[in-house]
Amino acid sequence: MSIESEIDIPEVKAEVEKAFATYEAALTGNDVATLEALFRDDPRTLRYGATENLYGMDEIRAFRRGRSSKGLDRTLERTQITTYGRDFAVANTLFRRENAPGKIGRQSQTWARFPDGWRVVSAHVSVIDEE
Amino acid sequence: MSIESEIDIPEVKAEVEKAFATYEAALTGNDVATLEALFRDDPRTLRYGATENLYGMDEIRAFRRGRSSKGLDRTLERTQITTYGRDFAVANTLFRRENAPGKIGRQSQTWARFPDGWRVVSAHVSVIDEE
Repeated sequence: MSIESEIDIPEVKAEVEKAFATYEAALTGNDVATLEALFRDDPRTLRYGATENLYGMDEIRAFRRGRSSKGLDRTLERTQITTYGRDFAVANTLFRRENAPGKIGRQSQTWARFPDGWRVVSAHVSVIDEE
Repeated sequence: MSIESEIDIPEVKAEVEKAFATYEAALTGNDVATLEALFRDDPRTLRYGATENLYGMDEIRAFRRGRSSKGLDRTLERTQITTYGRDFAVANTLFRRENAPGKIGRQSQTWARFPDGWRVVSAHVSVIDEE
Protein backbone atom coordinates (compact mmCIF):
# COMPACT_ATOMS: atom_id res chain seq x y z
CA MET A 1 0.00 0.00 0.00
CA SER A 2 2.49 2.57 -1.14
CA ILE A 3 0.28 5.18 -2.70
CA GLU A 4 -2.85 6.96 -1.69
CA SER A 5 -4.16 6.64 -5.25
CA GLU A 6 -4.65 2.93 -4.67
CA ILE A 7 -7.46 3.57 -2.21
CA ASP A 8 -10.97 3.36 -3.60
CA ILE A 9 -10.06 2.68 -7.22
CA PRO A 10 -13.53 3.06 -8.76
CA GLU A 11 -13.73 -0.27 -10.59
CA VAL A 12 -12.43 -2.16 -7.57
CA LYS A 13 -14.88 -0.44 -5.29
CA ALA A 14 -17.71 -1.27 -7.68
CA GLU A 15 -16.78 -4.94 -7.49
CA VAL A 16 -16.82 -4.98 -3.71
CA GLU A 17 -20.09 -3.04 -3.58
CA LYS A 18 -21.62 -5.68 -5.79
CA ALA A 19 -20.29 -8.52 -3.60
CA PHE A 20 -21.53 -6.72 -0.49
CA ALA A 21 -25.01 -6.30 -2.00
CA THR A 22 -25.11 -9.97 -2.96
CA TYR A 23 -24.22 -10.89 0.58
CA GLU A 24 -26.90 -8.63 2.05
CA ALA A 25 -29.58 -10.05 -0.21
CA ALA A 26 -28.53 -13.58 0.73
CA LEU A 27 -28.55 -12.71 4.41
CA THR A 28 -32.03 -11.25 4.52
CA GLY A 29 -33.30 -13.93 2.12
CA ASN A 30 -31.66 -16.73 4.16
CA ASP A 31 -29.84 -18.00 1.08
CA VAL A 32 -27.39 -20.07 3.10
CA ALA A 33 -25.56 -21.45 0.07
CA THR A 34 -24.67 -17.96 -1.14
CA LEU A 35 -23.71 -16.82 2.34
CA GLU A 36 -21.33 -19.75 2.61
CA ALA A 37 -19.90 -19.25 -0.85
CA LEU A 38 -19.04 -15.63 -0.09
CA PHE A 39 -16.93 -16.56 2.91
CA ARG A 40 -13.44 -17.86 2.17
CA ASP A 41 -13.48 -21.63 2.72
CA ASP A 42 -10.43 -21.76 4.96
CA PRO A 43 -9.64 -22.59 8.60
CA ARG A 44 -8.29 -19.04 9.02
CA THR A 45 -11.63 -17.44 8.16
CA LEU A 46 -13.19 -16.06 11.31
CA ARG A 47 -16.56 -14.67 12.29
CA TYR A 48 -17.47 -13.07 15.58
CA GLY A 49 -21.27 -13.07 15.56
CA ALA A 50 -23.86 -11.38 17.72
CA THR A 51 -23.67 -14.14 20.34
CA GLU A 52 -20.99 -16.57 19.12
CA ASN A 53 -17.32 -16.73 18.20
CA LEU A 54 -16.63 -18.86 15.15
CA TYR A 55 -13.10 -19.85 14.18
CA GLY A 56 -12.73 -21.41 10.76
CA MET A 57 -15.16 -22.15 7.97
CA ASP A 58 -16.30 -25.41 9.55
CA GLU A 59 -17.68 -23.59 12.57
CA ILE A 60 -19.17 -20.82 10.42
CA ARG A 61 -20.89 -23.36 8.17
CA ALA A 62 -22.36 -25.29 11.11
CA PHE A 63 -23.74 -22.07 12.58
CA ARG A 64 -25.29 -20.89 9.33
CA ARG A 65 -27.05 -24.17 8.74
CA GLY A 66 -28.49 -24.19 12.24
CA ARG A 67 -29.77 -20.65 12.49
CA SER A 68 -33.37 -19.57 12.39
CA SER A 69 -34.70 -18.09 9.19
CA LYS A 70 -37.08 -15.75 11.04
CA GLY A 71 -36.69 -12.02 11.62
CA LEU A 72 -33.81 -11.50 9.24
CA ASP A 73 -35.07 -8.29 7.62
CA ARG A 74 -33.01 -5.24 8.43
CA THR A 75 -32.24 -1.78 7.17
CA LEU A 76 -28.69 -0.57 6.70
CA GLU A 77 -27.32 2.82 7.70
CA ARG A 78 -24.00 4.58 7.17
CA THR A 79 -22.58 1.77 5.06
CA GLN A 80 -18.96 2.47 4.22
CA ILE A 81 -16.88 0.39 1.85
CA THR A 82 -13.22 1.23 1.34
CA THR A 83 -10.86 -0.63 -0.97
CA TYR A 84 -7.07 -0.77 -0.56
CA GLY A 85 -5.22 -1.71 -3.70
CA ARG A 86 -6.95 -4.16 -6.04
CA ASP A 87 -7.32 -7.15 -3.74
CA PHE A 88 -8.45 -5.93 -0.34
CA ALA A 89 -11.40 -4.08 1.15
CA VAL A 90 -13.27 -3.37 4.35
CA ALA A 91 -17.05 -3.01 4.50
CA ASN A 92 -18.74 -1.60 7.58
CA THR A 93 -22.38 -0.87 8.17
CA LEU A 94 -24.86 -0.18 10.91
CA PHE A 95 -28.20 -1.98 10.81
CA ARG A 96 -31.57 -1.95 12.53
CA ARG A 97 -34.25 -4.56 12.88
CA GLU A 98 -37.89 -3.81 13.52
CA ASN A 99 -37.98 -6.55 16.13
CA ALA A 100 -35.13 -4.94 18.09
CA PRO A 101 -36.16 -1.35 18.88
CA GLY A 102 -33.56 0.78 20.68
CA LYS A 103 -30.76 -1.41 19.40
CA ILE A 104 -28.20 -0.70 16.71
CA GLY A 105 -26.25 -3.44 14.95
CA ARG A 106 -22.79 -3.14 13.55
CA GLN A 107 -21.35 -5.40 10.85
CA SER A 108 -17.71 -5.31 9.82
CA GLN A 109 -16.29 -7.43 7.02
CA THR A 110 -12.83 -7.70 5.54
CA TRP A 111 -12.88 -8.86 1.94
CA ALA A 112 -10.01 -10.24 -0.16
CA ARG A 113 -9.92 -11.11 -3.83
CA PHE A 114 -9.09 -14.72 -4.67
CA PRO A 115 -8.93 -16.45 -8.06
CA ASP A 116 -12.61 -17.38 -7.69
CA GLY A 117 -13.70 -13.90 -6.64
CA TRP A 118 -14.11 -11.64 -3.61
CA ARG A 119 -14.51 -13.47 -0.31
CA VAL A 120 -14.97 -12.43 3.31
CA VAL A 121 -11.95 -13.49 5.37
CA SER A 122 -13.00 -11.90 8.66
CA ALA A 123 -16.32 -10.64 9.99
CA HIS A 124 -17.60 -9.17 13.22
CA VAL A 125 -21.24 -8.53 14.05
CA SER A 126 -22.47 -7.01 17.30
CA VAL A 127 -25.56 -5.27 18.63
CA ILE A 128 -25.48 -2.45 21.18
CA ASP A 129 -27.95 -0.08 22.77
CA GLU A 130 -28.63 2.98 20.69
CA GLU A 131 -26.27 5.82 21.65
CA MET B 1 -4.62 -12.18 -3.98
CA SER B 2 -3.90 -14.67 -6.69
CA ILE B 3 -1.88 -17.29 -4.87
CA GLU B 4 -2.28 -19.13 -1.62
CA SER B 5 1.44 -18.74 -0.94
CA GLU B 6 0.88 -15.04 -0.30
CA ILE B 7 -1.03 -15.78 2.89
CA ASP B 8 0.97 -15.61 6.10
CA ILE B 9 4.37 -14.84 4.57
CA PRO B 10 6.50 -15.25 7.70
CA GLU B 11 8.28 -11.88 7.63
CA VAL B 12 5.05 -10.03 6.92
CA LYS B 13 3.25 -11.84 9.71
CA ALA B 14 6.11 -11.00 12.10
CA GLU B 15 5.71 -7.31 11.26
CA VAL B 16 1.99 -7.35 11.99
CA GLU B 17 2.46 -9.35 15.18
CA LYS B 18 4.87 -6.67 16.34
CA ALA B 19 2.45 -3.86 15.49
CA PHE B 20 -0.36 -5.74 17.22
CA ALA B 21 1.74 -6.19 20.37
CA THR B 22 2.66 -2.50 20.36
CA TYR B 23 -1.01 -1.61 20.13
CA GLU B 24 -1.96 -3.95 22.97
CA ALA B 25 0.74 -2.53 25.26
CA ALA B 26 -0.43 1.00 24.44
CA LEU B 27 -4.04 0.06 25.12
CA THR B 28 -3.51 -1.46 28.53
CA GLY B 29 -0.96 1.24 29.40
CA ASN B 30 -3.28 4.02 28.21
CA ASP B 31 -0.61 5.39 25.87
CA VAL B 32 -3.06 7.46 23.85
CA ALA B 33 -0.42 8.93 21.53
CA THR B 34 0.66 5.47 20.39
CA LEU B 35 -2.93 4.28 20.04
CA GLU B 36 -3.66 7.25 17.81
CA ALA B 37 -0.48 6.83 15.78
CA LEU B 38 -1.34 3.20 15.00
CA PHE B 39 -4.68 4.11 13.48
CA ARG B 40 -4.58 5.49 9.94
CA ASP B 41 -5.19 9.24 10.14
CA ASP B 42 -7.93 9.39 7.55
CA PRO B 43 -11.66 10.15 7.44
CA ARG B 44 -12.26 6.63 6.12
CA THR B 45 -10.78 4.98 9.20
CA LEU B 46 -13.59 3.51 11.26
CA ARG B 47 -13.94 2.05 14.73
CA TYR B 48 -17.00 0.38 16.19
CA GLY B 49 -16.30 0.34 19.93
CA ALA B 50 -17.94 -1.44 22.83
CA THR B 51 -20.60 1.27 23.15
CA GLU B 52 -19.89 3.77 20.33
CA ASN B 53 -19.65 4.01 16.56
CA LEU B 54 -16.81 6.21 15.39
CA TYR B 55 -16.49 7.26 11.76
CA GLY B 56 -13.20 8.90 10.83
CA MET B 57 -10.04 9.65 12.73
CA ASP B 58 -11.45 12.87 14.22
CA GLU B 59 -14.15 10.95 16.07
CA ILE B 60 -11.72 8.21 17.09
CA ARG B 61 -9.25 10.76 18.44
CA ALA B 62 -11.89 12.60 20.44
CA PHE B 63 -13.06 9.35 21.99
CA ARG B 64 -9.57 8.19 22.93
CA ARG B 65 -8.73 11.45 24.62
CA GLY B 66 -11.91 11.38 26.65
CA ARG B 67 -11.89 7.82 27.87
CA SER B 68 -11.13 6.69 31.40
CA SER B 69 -7.70 5.25 32.11
CA LYS B 70 -9.06 2.86 34.73
CA GLY B 71 -9.66 -0.88 34.40
CA LEU B 72 -7.83 -1.32 31.11
CA ASP B 73 -5.96 -4.52 32.01
CA ARG B 74 -7.07 -7.53 30.08
CA THR B 75 -5.92 -10.96 29.02
CA LEU B 76 -6.08 -12.11 25.42
CA GLU B 77 -7.26 -15.50 24.19
CA ARG B 78 -7.29 -17.18 20.80
CA THR B 79 -5.51 -14.31 19.09
CA GLN B 80 -5.32 -14.96 15.36
CA ILE B 81 -3.38 -12.80 12.92
CA THR B 82 -3.52 -13.58 9.22
CA THR B 83 -1.70 -11.64 6.52
CA TYR B 84 -2.78 -11.46 2.88
CA GLY B 85 -0.03 -10.44 0.49
CA ARG B 86 2.54 -7.99 1.83
CA ASP B 87 0.30 -5.04 2.67
CA PHE B 88 -2.81 -6.34 4.35
CA ALA B 89 -3.74 -8.25 7.48
CA VAL B 90 -6.54 -9.05 9.88
CA ALA B 91 -6.02 -9.46 13.62
CA ASN B 92 -8.72 -10.95 15.82
CA THR B 93 -8.65 -11.74 19.48
CA LEU B 94 -10.89 -12.53 22.40
CA PHE B 95 -10.23 -10.79 25.68
CA ARG B 96 -11.34 -10.89 29.32
CA ARG B 97 -11.20 -8.32 32.07
CA GLU B 98 -11.19 -9.17 35.77
CA ASN B 99 -13.79 -6.47 36.35
CA ALA B 100 -16.20 -8.06 33.87
CA PRO B 101 -16.76 -11.67 34.94
CA GLY B 102 -18.95 -13.79 32.68
CA LYS B 103 -18.22 -11.55 29.71
CA ILE B 104 -16.03 -12.15 26.72
CA GLY B 105 -14.67 -9.35 24.54
CA ARG B 106 -13.91 -9.57 20.85
CA GLN B 107 -11.54 -7.24 19.02
CA SER B 108 -11.17 -7.26 15.25
CA GLN B 109 -8.70 -5.07 13.40
CA THR B 110 -7.86 -4.72 9.73
CA TRP B 111 -4.33 -3.49 9.17
CA ALA B 112 -2.78 -2.04 6.00
CA ARG B 113 0.81 -1.12 5.29
CA PHE B 114 1.42 2.52 4.39
CA PRO B 115 4.71 4.33 3.68
CA ASP B 116 4.99 5.19 7.37
CA GLY B 117 4.18 1.68 8.57
CA TRP B 118 1.32 -0.65 9.45
CA ARG B 119 -1.89 1.11 10.45
CA VAL B 120 -5.37 0.01 11.53
CA VAL B 121 -7.94 1.08 8.95
CA SER B 122 -10.96 -0.59 10.53
CA ALA B 123 -11.66 -1.91 14.00
CA HIS B 124 -14.59 -3.48 15.82
CA VAL B 125 -14.75 -4.19 19.54
CA SER B 126 -17.70 -5.77 21.31
CA VAL B 127 -18.44 -7.59 24.54
CA ILE B 128 -20.92 -10.45 24.88
CA ASP B 129 -22.00 -12.90 27.54
CA GLU B 130 -19.81 -15.92 27.77
CA GLU B 131 -21.11 -18.74 25.58
